[in-house]
Amino acid sequence: MNYINAGDRSGCLSFLSGITNLSLIQCDLSCFLAQQSLPPVNSLSLEFLTDVCIALEKLEMDKSCRGLVVTSSQPKVFSAGLDILDMYGKSPEHCAEFWKAVQEMWLKFYGSNMITIAAVNGSSPAGGCLLSMTCDYRIMADNPRYSIGLNETKLGIVAPFWFKDTMVNTVGHRATEMALQLGLLYSPAEALKIGLVDQLVHEDQVLTTATETMTKWLAIPDHARQLTKSMMRKPTIDKLAANREADVNNFVKFITKDSIQKSLGMYLEMLKRRKA
Amino acid sequence: MNYINAGDRSGCLSFLSGITNLSLIQCDLSCFLAQQSLPPVNSLSLEFLTDVCIALEKLEMDKSCRGLVVTSSQPKVFSAGLDILDMYGKSPEHCAEFWKAVQEMWLKFYGSNMITIAAVNGSSPAGGCLLSMTCDYRIMADNPRYSIGLNETKLGIVAPFWFKDTMVNTVGHRATEMALQLGLLYSPAEALKIGLVDQLVHEDQVLTTATETMTKWLAIPDHARQLTKSMMRKPTIDKLAANREADVNNFVKFITKDSIQKSLGMYLEMLKRRKA
Amino acid sequence: MNYINAGDRSGCLSFLSGITNLSLIQCDLSCFLAQQSLPPVNSLSLEFLTDVCIALEKLEMDKSCRGLVVTSSQPKVFSAGLDILDMYGKSPEHCAEFWKAVQEMWLKFYGSNMITIAAVNGSSPAGGCLLSMTCDYRIMADNPRYSIGLNETKLGIVAPFWFKDTMVNTVGHRATEMALQLGLLYSPAEALKIGLVDQLVHEDQVLTTATETMTKWLAIPDHARQLTKSMMRKPTIDKLAANREADVNNFVKFITKDSIQKSLGMYLEMLKRRKA
Repeated sequence: MNYINAGDRSGCLSFLSGITNLSLIQCDLSCFLAQQSLPPVNSLSLEFLTDVCIALEKLEMDKSCRGLVVTSSQPKVFSAGLDILDMYGKSPEHCAEFWKAVQEMWLKFYGSNMITIAAVNGSSPAGGCLLSMTCDYRIMADNPRYSIGLNETKLGIVAPFWFKDTMVNTVGHRATEMALQLGLLYSPAEALKIGLVDQLVHEDQVLTTATETMTKWLAIPDHARQLTKSMMRKPTIDKLAANREADVNNFVKFITKDSIQKSLGMYLEMLKRRKA
Repeated sequence: MNYINAGDRSGCLSFLSGITNLSLIQCDLSCFLAQQSLPPVNSLSLEFLTDVCIALEKLEMDKSCRGLVVTSSQPKVFSAGLDILDMYGKSPEHCAEFWKAVQEMWLKFYGSNMITIAAVNGSSPAGGCLLSMTCDYRIMADNPRYSIGLNETKLGIVAPFWFKDTMVNTVGHRATEMALQLGLLYSPAEALKIGLVDQLVHEDQVLTTATETMTKWLAIPDHARQLTKSMMRKPTIDKLAANREADVNNFVKFITKDSIQKSLGMYLEMLKRRKA
Repeated sequence: MNYINAGDRSGCLSFLSGITNLSLIQCDLSCFLAQQSLPPVNSLSLEFLTDVCIALEKLEMDKSCRGLVVTSSQPKVFSAGLDILDMYGKSPEHCAEFWKAVQEMWLKFYGSNMITIAAVNGSSPAGGCLLSMTCDYRIMADNPRYSIGLNETKLGIVAPFWFKDTMVNTVGHRATEMALQLGLLYSPAEALKIGLVDQLVHEDQVLTTATETMTKWLAIPDHARQLTKSMMRKPTIDKLAANREADVNNFVKFITKDSIQKSLGMYLEMLKRRKA
């Protein structure tokens, strides 16, 4: 399988013009590589989430696109998760808008008809871990400096029920209970052990392994695979779909609390000091 | 525990006269061995399923029969699964009749009051895997040429929700999601690793181990064990019991589609060529 | 972390006067050690359960108490489980009262806002296993003579649905199905393997490890951890909370049956002979 720059496929990707921080590269006739390329750490901002959702929607409608490998072009990080700047010091309206975009991203990825493979070539905390868990298969770089997990409680916030449901579907109830209560970030080896990722390979081999894996998945008839995927995930998806507004209200009410804003502020300060 | 041919138990098994492809052998006073013996590969045809259900129903009513070991007398195969000839080129009425028999088999085995142990002494794809998953314990021959799994998607068809539920109850949500999407057939070693079977033994030891295991299970008071088994399985059983007709209609609508019939035809051709 | 006798904390523990078989020792400002000390084997009698519930309720209201380590001061046993003397030869009214206390204990522990860690320094069958499963983390002494499990079927009785739910949440559906049907008691090594306990340490290290673990859990902001714990456990708790009366009636009807009373009588005789 060769990587072909999407630009080479005349016309076909014109719908992606204007999406600057997600580069789509065509692997072969039936599969794309989606590279998150938003410096420095692919934070899932409102703008980036909107772009990602538009891209996914268009790919989903392109019948020739059957698979998607999701990865990062930024060094050392797959995705740093939700952008705290979209939750800190913002109006309730902005927070609501942001949360709807997070929901939309999850609904689109977890319910995608495409084969989705996460090539986790760097750290993947919080929303980054969620994004990788929505995929059908997760390959992670075997570098002990990278970590993955839903670490929300460490910031004083709480993963919503659909983050939790996705994790229960991936690693089971008990591992999720401990992971979420402690906000655990797992090393690649630990993540493999509990089933949070499916395979570890050398950093250099993440993309190659992802495309090889894709080839195996592409051998399965689409129709049967899609019905099966939907059967497995529909109850979980329906739960959020039926409660989007309540979930938004719940998030806005929680995140705009003085105590939570203070926690986020302290966390941002800590990040700044770390950089300096 | 000694095997006694059922014929030796005067009178008791007269209800089994006329059932030719399932030989029932009495192990001791409280346990039977059910040997599938339908050449060449114990395909679960409408006729065979009907026979199996009648036999199970009678054993269930015989209070002295507390346990059942299910195995195969055919070489290299435990059960090849549902008989495609009952789904290919058949009338919707025939397909409906067939599917009702598959449901009946599952309901009877998964809800059995007896201790059921699968002595998986050969390959066990699709419906064969389902049958073994309905049992309380699975012992498989440690022969790497054998495999087990729900491989429906590879044929372009989809495992119904109750196949899926049974697998989730056995190996959990994540392993099921991957197994079903890819139609994976597992080697004995892989099957043990994900919990699809409980124990591997040398091919020669499958039956002996099954009867030894049965002795351990027979030591548990029936009443308490049966109530416990029912508590674990009832929600899953109730789901199908409440939706049998819709599930039949769904199956018939799907399987009689031109595209699906074409897939099945190609699969049958492939099997013929392989034999030749 | 140093152990301070609760008596040293002037005033604060006065509410515990009169509770004789549960000694509460303060570890530091935010954590207590609850030592079951009811000779010979910490059987969960009606009286003891009542005391435990009162103590837990008071600790729960004391905002400065954020964590609880549960252990035993009796040699070789963490807890022998429910006291059979409260179910054998007793009036239906007494049995009902007893069962309500068992429910109350489970509801309080499984839904506790505190961090709860089980320091399982001895055998832990039946109700003892349940108690440890309600905790957030389980550390067991690595002594092969100790065992843990829900062994109700071996006595001819049946674990109720909320015992079952707690175990499914801990070790998954399949392991629970087998464990409950066979009434399995696991060695520490086996318990670790299926996830029934989280960690094994040398007998001398159980308490030290428990307090070290507590320190890690105390580092998580309470509010976020409590909301997360509640999200994970609320559906399971709600199921019993909505069905307490039916569950009591069900228990009383079952346990007062002649056949069940006879089983319990035989079991008590066996215990007596073993002692002699």
